[in-house]
Amino acid sequence: MPAPVPIEADPEPVAEAAMAAEPDEAAISEVADPALDTVQAGIFDNGKMWTFEYPPLDYLRTTYGFSADEEWFRRAHLSALRIPSCSASFVSASGLVMTNHHCARGSIEQVSREGEDLVADGFYAATLEDERPIEDYYADQLIEIRDVTDRVYAGLEGVTGTQERADRRQEVTDEIVAEITEEFGGEDAGFNVEMVELYAGGRYSVYIFRRYTDLRLVISPELQVAYFGGDYDNFTYPRYDLDMTFYRVYDDNGEPLQTEFYFPFSEEGVSEGDLVFVIGNPGSTSRLQTVAELEYRRDVSDQSVVDLLKTRLVALHEYAESHPEEAREMDLRNTIFGFENSLKAYTGIVGGLHDPVKIAKRKDHERRFQAAIDADPDLQAEYGDLIPRMAELQAQKREHDAALSSFLAVGHPQLGSSTMARAFAAFQYLSAQSQGAPPEMVDELKDAIVATPDQPREINEAQLAQRFHDFIRNYGPDHPFVQGILEGRTPEGMAAVIMDGSMLADSATAVAALNTGGLSMDDPAVRIVLPIAQALGPAQQVQAMVTPEETEISSALGRALFEVYGTSVPPDATFSLRIADGVVQDYEYNGTVAPVYTTYYGMYDHYYSYGAGSDWDLPELWLSPPESFDLSTPLNFVSTADIIGGNSGSPVIDQNLQVVGLIFDGNIESLPGDYIYLPVENRAVAVDARGMLEALEEIYQADRIFQELVSGVLVGGN
Amino acid sequence: MPAPVPIEADPEPVAEAAMAAEPDEAAISEVADPALDTVQAGIFDNGKMWTFEYPPLDYLRTTYGFSADEEWFRRAHLSALRIPSCSASFVSASGLVMTNHHCARGSIEQVSREGEDLVADGFYAATLEDERPIEDYYADQLIEIRDVTDRVYAGLEGVTGTQERADRRQEVTDEIVAEITEEFGGEDAGFNVEMVELYAGGRYSVYIFRRYTDLRLVISPELQVAYFGGDYDNFTYPRYDLDMTFYRVYDDNGEPLQTEFYFPFSEEGVSEGDLVFVIGNPGSTSRLQTVAELEYRRDVSDQSVVDLLKTRLVALHEYAESHPEEAREMDLRNTIFGFENSLKAYTGIVGGLHDPVKIAKRKDHERRFQAAIDADPDLQAEYGDLIPRMAELQAQKREHDAALSSFLAVGHPQLGSSTMARAFAAFQYLSAQSQGAPPEMVDELKDAIVATPDQPREINEAQLAQRFHDFIRNYGPDHPFVQGILEGRTPEGMAAVIMDGSMLADSATAVAALNTGGLSMDDPAVRIVLPIAQALGPAQQVQAMVTPEETEISSALGRALFEVYGTSVPPDATFSLRIADGVVQDYEYNGTVAPVYTTYYGMYDHYYSYGAGSDWDLPELWLSPPESFDLSTPLNFVSTADIIGGNSGSPVIDQNLQVVGLIFDGNIESLPGDYIYLPVENRAVAVDARGMLEALEEIYQADRIFQELVSGVLVGGN
Repeated sequence: MPAPVPIEADPEPVAEAAMAAEPDEAAISEVADPALDTVQAGIFDNGKMWTFEYPPLDYLRTTYGFSADEEWFRRAHLSALRIPSCSASFVSASGLVMTNHHCARGSIEQVSREGEDLVADGFYAATLEDERPIEDYYADQLIEIRDVTDRVYAGLEGVTGTQERADRRQEVTDEIVAEITEEFGGEDAGFNVEMVELYAGGRYSVYIFRRYTDLRLVISPELQVAYFGGDYDNFTYPRYDLDMTFYRVYDDNGEPLQTEFYFPFSEEGVSEGDLVFVIGNPGSTSRLQTVAELEYRRDVSDQSVVDLLKTRLVALHEYAESHPEEAREMDLRNTIFGFENSLKAYTGIVGGLHDPVKIAKRKDHERRFQAAIDADPDLQAEYGDLIPRMAELQAQKREHDAALSSFLAVGHPQLGSSTMARAFAAFQYLSAQSQGAPPEMVDELKDAIVATPDQPREINEAQLAQRFHDFIRNYGPDHPFVQGILEGRTPEGMAAVIMDGSMLADSATAVAALNTGGLSMDDPAVRIVLPIAQALGPAQQVQAMVTPEETEISSALGRALFEVYGTSVPPDATFSLRIADGVVQDYEYNGTVAPVYTTYYGMYDHYYSYGAGSDWDLPELWLSPPESFDLSTPLNFVSTADIIGGNSGSPVIDQNLQVVGLIFDGNIESLPGDYIYLPVENRAVAVDARGMLEALEEIYQADRIFQELVSGVLVGGN
Repeated sequence: MPAPVPIEADPEPVAEAAMAAEPDEAAISEVADPALDTVQAGIFDNGKMWTFEYPPLDYLRTTYGFSADEEWFRRAHLSALRIPSCSASFVSASGLVMTNHHCARGSIEQVSREGEDLVADGFYAATLEDERPIEDYYADQLIEIRDVTDRVYAGLEGVTGTQERADRRQEVTDEIVAEITEEFGGEDAGFNVEMVELYAGGRYSVYIFRRYTDLRLVISPELQVAYFGGDYDNFTYPRYDLDMTFYRVYDDNGEPLQTEFYFPFSEEGVSEGDLVFVIGNPGSTSRLQTVAELEYRRDVSDQSVVDLLKTRLVALHEYAESHPEEAREMDLRNTIFGFENSLKAYTGIVGGLHDPVKIAKRKDHERRFQAAIDADPDLQAEYGDLIPRMAELQAQKREHDAALSSFLAVGHPQLGSSTMARAFAAFQYLSAQSQGAPPEMVDELKDAIVATPDQPREINEAQLAQRFHDFIRNYGPDHPFVQGILEGRTPEGMAAVIMDGSMLADSATAVAALNTGGLSMDDPAVRIVLPIAQALGPAQQVQAMVTPEETEISSALGRALFEVYGTSVPPDATFSLRIADGVVQDYEYNGTVAPVYTTYYGMYDHYYSYGAGSDWDLPELWLSPPESFDLSTPLNFVSTADIIGGNSGSPVIDQNLQVVGLIFDGNIESLPGDYIYLPVENRAVAVDARGMLEALEEIYQADRIFQELVSGVLVGGN
């Protein structure tokens, strides 16, 4: 640790004569964070998830000197595929398809036969005949886009009222979709026609897909290497993960699909500074949210999710440690990992909302956007008050933030107490009963009490206590509501009282109480429902009132953005095909700089550091790789491409439409990508094409697939 | 990127009857960060740099079940060494000494012969005869500690006044040191006697060292592998750095020193959870600083260093890019790295000061400390007002924060403009001249103008402009002082005016102007000195007034801490020997978890990722290691041991006094260790003993050293 250079804290002495001069009293000034005042919105803060109907030709030309013609874009979208929840692409002329292992887990599990665990153990079809068909699965290839904006607008002409317009829009959509489906031979002709609403209705496109339904599993690595580092490493980089799976699309005759459109594998790969493109289907983004909405998320809604997960995980961890056997049976470890994964995601999102620079950028964007609206009388008339109205709605919700935060996930089977969930149901049941509701309704409510699944007492009681802590955190300990609930007890004390005294402590006693009619409003668990409901009721009413208006304003803001900026700003993600340009570029992390790519050496470093049995364990096959296996082969790399969930499985291609990588994640700094895209730190993480080829050839000896990827055509046989 | 588990934002519906109840208006409460109110100071927030005179025997026993006897501690301090600026230790019975390569750079350079660059290329003395003597160097072995507190206190009895007490303290110290030096045979007997003031004078100890002056260089790796990752990776982990060098101490007969006291090398190494100890000399910490002092650092003093480095580095980077040739000649790249290193350190320090949890912990500590003082009438009388007084002093400085921040490092040869430095000197020269000062004084002031080294015009002008930006940032753009300086121009505009019009633009024109007498107070550079001096003068007066009082209060606080907590809290670091206990433990980082150790695989991963020519380049010898070289050998590891600059070169030992590692750095999260020690994230980074042995045996084929480390004795020959 070479010491930092000392910085002299005092300037050189100045002439004494001058020093004796009168002090400049006015010298003390209060400038609050002046640096933030100069923060400007970037032109791409809203992202770079370009649509294929409005590709940014000029931008690509002026920025990179890259002039793609129509044919380039046509080949790009015809080689890309959308599969359920993920993206994929053709990577050979013989229908070979590439996606992520984490996208294919369900399929791999499905094709596993008795005694096989192909997700864990991996799969390789040594011959074409061994490729295993996946049932109820499909891949959609975008073959045509039609702009139907005018027709939708014409259909909406003169229709007023939110619900009426929504209904009419659905009618017009159904009409158009049906018409085009017919044009393509009807429902069973193997096409899929979808209306895609861009810019929240600023533009309407119909996407026509060729739908392939005969997909077969070709090769997939072991889970351990395809999810190397597990949930720990999820959302992070540097990374060492072979998150790939290959399918093959077959044609109607059961033969490998012959396709002109595919992305050939590059053997050269990427270098720092390279221009790349990600073609895929980003799921959803919230980049049109106003600053007031973001601040509400930061202070209330997303923050309360973080609080919930943090506090509830403690109880789950404690139980897992004290009851290892039961925890194993409940598969509690995976549940915990899932929640920790969510906590990581929400922490990243909330963390970004606390970054003054990000908020300053969103503020500047909003200022400019509002100014542009105000500069045009028509726009001003239609959209001028949207941003302030949205702020008012957030303020309305904030008046109830304590209640809204206090009851989050109250009925959740792990994050909430089952006794409290039962008490809510019991309160409804008893109310209905006493109000003489119809017997069927009373019975239904009774069933709901019994249907609530049991929790281990420790978790149940701890989650109950945590709920009381939520009340204290959100309302303050001295609030009458809190004092009314706790009756002077600690959260833990009150939770114990309820668990000891309530007939709803578990489902067996609940059933007994219901059968004997012994359950009453005086039950210690049921007794607290009324004050909670009284505190929560008004909050829920406000929430119910505000939500549709928020949706309406968001939608109008989307259209306003389109009217102001046109297609120079891409629309929010809609799980439809996009093309994102990016540069292979390092970034500052952890006090140093993250490399543009990692190598197999790093995978082994992690294996030996964390050890067998850890999330960085390696499968048997990898522990003694052949000598020809080149550990210096790039394994994962990063680029500035703008991606988000749904992009998993997207190919990363170069200017020659060759595959250089396979998107599978973003770095931890990309989590605020939900609401702002900042290429200074946001990185898309991909499996490197070179790493895939090396593993296929050297580890899996999957020569026929290696050859197919390299040559572009099926080579047949083993 | 498996998606996060969706968390339902809305609770289950509750009975409508209850929902219709009156809204609870009082439900809206304002609780500001209630979570922080519950943050408590940890008992070891002030650290674990234990002294050898007050070792924490009970703490070690109750915490780890580790009962070390007196002999254990004696062996520990007798095997440890202090060398200039760093720590070291004996690691064989034949005087072999281990320290860091970065501590030994000067020595290695010194012993390089013509045509050799041993720092870069590494060195290995194949035989004993080849070991190269280092001149003017030493290693101190602590052989005895004597508590002289009573004697110092007696000497101070009745002496009042800060200066008087300081002088008397020095006299008593000199007296004691002289007496003990005499007892050990006088000045030239090979001992070094030092007074060590602990707890800012709460305790006084005399440390008696055996001083060894015949040290020879035995083996040192290539700089590239000993500083792998360079300044980028400095202060970070995960890390892959062989930062080691071995010396040998020779006795008065020129034979390798036979020593009973050394730390034998462990061949087993460490595992997660292991207890380890770091024996070394931490340089300095500021853990007694009050919250007001920390807040002043956060808002003013340290923050302005961050601002200075950030803004000034821009100009240096730009020049380095536009003038590569000149930059190489100036060695500008190294200068830049040095500043970036400082920026990293200060950013970590300031970042920690912005962490509300850290500040809350320091506040809670201060509250408890004040309460403990107030609980004892004697303590209250002597120390009761120290903390509030320190806060007042910070408030006084804050009144001048704009001036104090604006003129930081104004005369610095790279971070300041040379023209402005010349202008300050010229102003003094012209003032002295006009006031008829003695000719020698005038001449001296004149020389100072000429002596200011020249800067490239681009850097000079940019730093001048940045200085004006500092004024705007600190005073606000509309402040009369700023307007007076800039006269309506932009910072860049005014800098250009000065550079074009001033006779002080470079030293040649300055000399000419001085020779012709053409320099006057109207020179555009000199003209701005008066307003600056007027703005700065009062600030400097306050600073000058406050500083001695701060020192006095800090010192009293140190004594108060000792009186309240005794030796249960260790004193701030004093570059004297300490023992820090730590546990080998991972920690959360970058969204995942950092491993307890890294391996050589990771070193190669970095080499192939960043590439040849980067800071992660590898020396020739390492590019084709022998097959027997085990890449899975642990290379660096982390523990929770409390260390800081000065600890570099400290051995990490296990309970059997065996070397398991060699401290060389802390992680980025350890930077706030200056003012708070938080083992949740603060990690000491060490070279793993196993990694050292593997490199010595396999890469350097340094069999005789490998054998000596393993057997504990010199094996002689090659």
